Amino acid sequence: MDRQMIIGMHFGNGYGSQPGAWRMPGVDPTGYTSFDNQVRYAQAAERGKFQFLFVPDFPALKGDIETEAPQITIDPMMTLAAVARGTERIGMVATGSTTFNEPYNLARQFKALDLMSHGRAGWNAVPTSDPAIAANYGRDVPRRAEKYQRLHESIQIVQALWGSWEQDAWVHDASSGRFADPAKIRPINLRGQYVGSSGPLPLPPSEQGQPVIFQAGGGDQGMEVAGRYASGVIGAVYTIEDARAQRTALRNAAERAGRDPDEIKFFPGLMTTIAPDRRAGLDRRIAVSGHTFPQRVGYLGQMLGLRLDANWLDEPLSQALLATARPWPQDPRSAHALKIAREGWSLRDVLAHGVIDYHPVIAGPADEAADHMQAWFEAGAADGFWISPDVYEDGIDTFVDGVVPILQERGLFHRDYAGTTLRDHLDAPSQYGLDPRIAD
Amino acid sequence: MDRQMIIGMHFGNGYGSQPGAWRMPGVDPTGYTSFDNQVRYAQAAERGKFQFLFVPDFPALKGDIETEAPQITIDPMMTLAAVARGTERIGMVATGSTTFNEPYNLARQFKALDLMSHGRAGWNAVPTSDPAIAANYGRDVPRRAEKYQRLHESIQIVQALWGSWEQDAWVHDASSGRFADPAKIRPINLRGQYVGSSGPLPLPPSEQGQPVIFQAGGGDQGMEVAGRYASGVIGAVYTIEDARAQRTALRNAAERAGRDPDEIKFFPGLMTTIAPDRRAGLDRRIAVSGHTFPQRVGYLGQMLGLRLDANWLDEPLSQALLATARPWPQDPRSAHALKIAREGWSLRDVLAHGVIDYHPVIAGPADEAADHMQAWFEAGAADGFWISPDVYEDGIDTFVDGVVPILQERGLFHRDYAGTTLRDHLDAPSQYGLDPRIAD
Repeated sequence: MDRQMIIGMHFGNGYGSQPGAWRMPGVDPTGYTSFDNQVRYAQAAERGKFQFLFVPDFPALKGDIETEAPQITIDPMMTLAAVARGTERIGMVATGSTTFNEPYNLARQFKALDLMSHGRAGWNAVPTSDPAIAANYGRDVPRRAEKYQRLHESIQIVQALWGSWEQDAWVHDASSGRFADPAKIRPINLRGQYVGSSGPLPLPPSEQGQPVIFQAGGGDQGMEVAGRYASGVIGAVYTIEDARAQRTALRNAAERAGRDPDEIKFFPGLMTTIAPDRRAGLDRRIAVSGHTFPQRVGYLGQMLGLRLDANWLDEPLSQALLATARPWPQDPRSAHALKIAREGWSLRDVLAHGVIDYHPVIAGPADEAADHMQAWFEAGAADGFWISPDVYEDGIDTFVDGVVPILQERGLFHRDYAGTTLRDHLDAPSQYGLDPRIAD
Repeated sequence: MDRQMIIGMHFGNGYGSQPGAWRMPGVDPTGYTSFDNQVRYAQAAERGKFQFLFVPDFPALKGDIETEAPQITIDPMMTLAAVARGTERIGMVATGSTTFNEPYNLARQFKALDLMSHGRAGWNAVPTSDPAIAANYGRDVPRRAEKYQRLHESIQIVQALWGSWEQDAWVHDASSGRFADPAKIRPINLRGQYVGSSGPLPLPPSEQGQPVIFQAGGGDQGMEVAGRYASGVIGAVYTIEDARAQRTALRNAAERAGRDPDEIKFFPGLMTTIAPDRRAGLDRRIAVSGHTFPQRVGYLGQMLGLRLDANWLDEPLSQALLATARPWPQDPRSAHALKIAREGWSLRDVLAHGVIDYHPVIAGPADEAADHMQAWFEAGAADGFWISPDVYEDGIDTFVDGVVPILQERGLFHRDYAGTTLRDHLDAPSQYGLDPRIAD
């Protein structure tokens, strides 16, 4: 069989990726604290054979809390513990910052999640750069070099702890009374510049050995971390060209670290509003997030090189005005925004297309999403995608019932899980403890 | 109705409190990593109307791993997340050290557990003193004064974070589009000598407002912490006199902190092997832990002031020898050990009575356990108990089916949960944020 794409789902605040999702009809407005809902949404993604859930993190209050729910789950590990208990096959990747967490605590909780889910856990290992987060830990943001050095040290310590109980150390033979082989449980005694641990971590291997590493960083240092350790990289990239360039750079980084480039998978984001047709898709996005459009008109103007007024939301831009527009080179989304504006949509509809969202947006029929994914996948711009449904309550199901069957018919997506672990789902090579190829 | 006792259950490694529990007939020897088993055991305790589970912690490898399972769950919070999803009423208290954890992380995960369990979470806030644990965090054990100062600071910061989202701040009114009232979500800006946080913690109140504080420390400093903040204190005490003295001291400490002494509940431990009669109870303890007895004979001798030989296990001590015995004053269990020895039991049976276990031991019929609990409770030595069943697989059920009905018939224990939250179960006063009576 040919290469097939891998699909993950953004798993955030219990409502969906759109700021107004929490107040849509049919949505439980108290979903922010509902683990029942989160489990149900994970089950919906599992029905669609998604390979993983991806849980971002931001341990501080962000955004306009007066009108918008926080974009982040109340706690990534507790949420995934609930999901692990309520699902069977889907992988689950949580973000865990190494800047304000101890490696021993990270190693322990992610391994516990891995055991609890029977080998479906992944760790998105990232540094933290936001002063609001640092302040919640009574600190300042460390210098970039320090953050990345600590990230390297933390990943190595965590992986060494995961491997500190050898794969066959746990004997649990009731007849002989032998619980474990102490000769196969050893300290790691790693001490870096910023963090250290003696170990061992008294946890046996999971069904996939140990959790899979993800990365979501940027810049040269993030690329180097991904190249060394990551099996999956979560991207925020707007054009197929940028995605292909990033994927190539990641594959090169993996090769530089002595790995097979196929071991690292790149997942650009895609935000979906699946609807019977484009008009219905735009109307749904207007219903869920249209209240934010007036304050976005100014930035849209900057992207198009035009002075725009929030009072013009209901009208298309005039041909005369469009003739003077020039895409703003600083924002890679500008050319696409101008293309949409030139199609004659009202300013409100232009914004409803998601031209200034963090990821490409599909607002329309399922085959548009499938076409987008196929084009990126076949162009070598992606190994798969992480999908951000607009509103979880029905937006996961519309993707699962609409887009997934098309991808399956085209041979681009599996019809069922072949394996049981996240490592299986990602076709990531087995690893236990530190990767011996990665010398520090 | 008169005062009734509160019962918690020790919730450890998934096998039971006895070192050999993992290899008993009918026990799943892989239970160390089985969340299914843990949930089933929690459900068994809930069937018995236990008010809470108590999860100790020790983030390092301890004990003889070759023959004994680690005594600690693989991760307290992940275990209780699973239990929260699988139970309805029982409270759940986890140990979380303030020495190597950040207050923000503690505040977030315990509040998440509290939301997830609909108000059933408690935090056993303790410092860490063990060099093996410190080494897992790449550090040395801090000085005692520093540990306790950091404990005070951490509890206050955590409670302030819990209160940083006022009780009615979360509006979630879909019709008006108002998610929260930002005027009621405020930073805490607390900075101590060792830890600090700006907050707010973006989490609304749980059904009990915020988690309940437990303490398990010792010494004057532990007593002071308990007196200020704790609703429950977990004790390790062997005699009724010591228990009464400790309970009185705790109540005095609460009064000194400006609280009503009834706000603090003291729970001595009790280890149970419930069996049809004493002989069956002793045989069960010999089966589960008899392999450890040979190496305990020496210490038993020290307690009795006698030179004992491991070859004498099958015989009772001679009257001549017993006449020379003197209880060792350094160990409060010595008098009880001598009393049992004088009853004429073999050395093996003396040890099977649990005379050198960490808590009083009942090995015998249910009414012996009920009598013990009643005596301590009525003597003002306890507000309740935390029970450590020998082997969870059947040892919880024998307690629930044997001891609980006796206590209920005697009017000493509730017949069902009256409330829904841990705060209800403990009759702890409502609290949200810092206790205004506790000035630092």
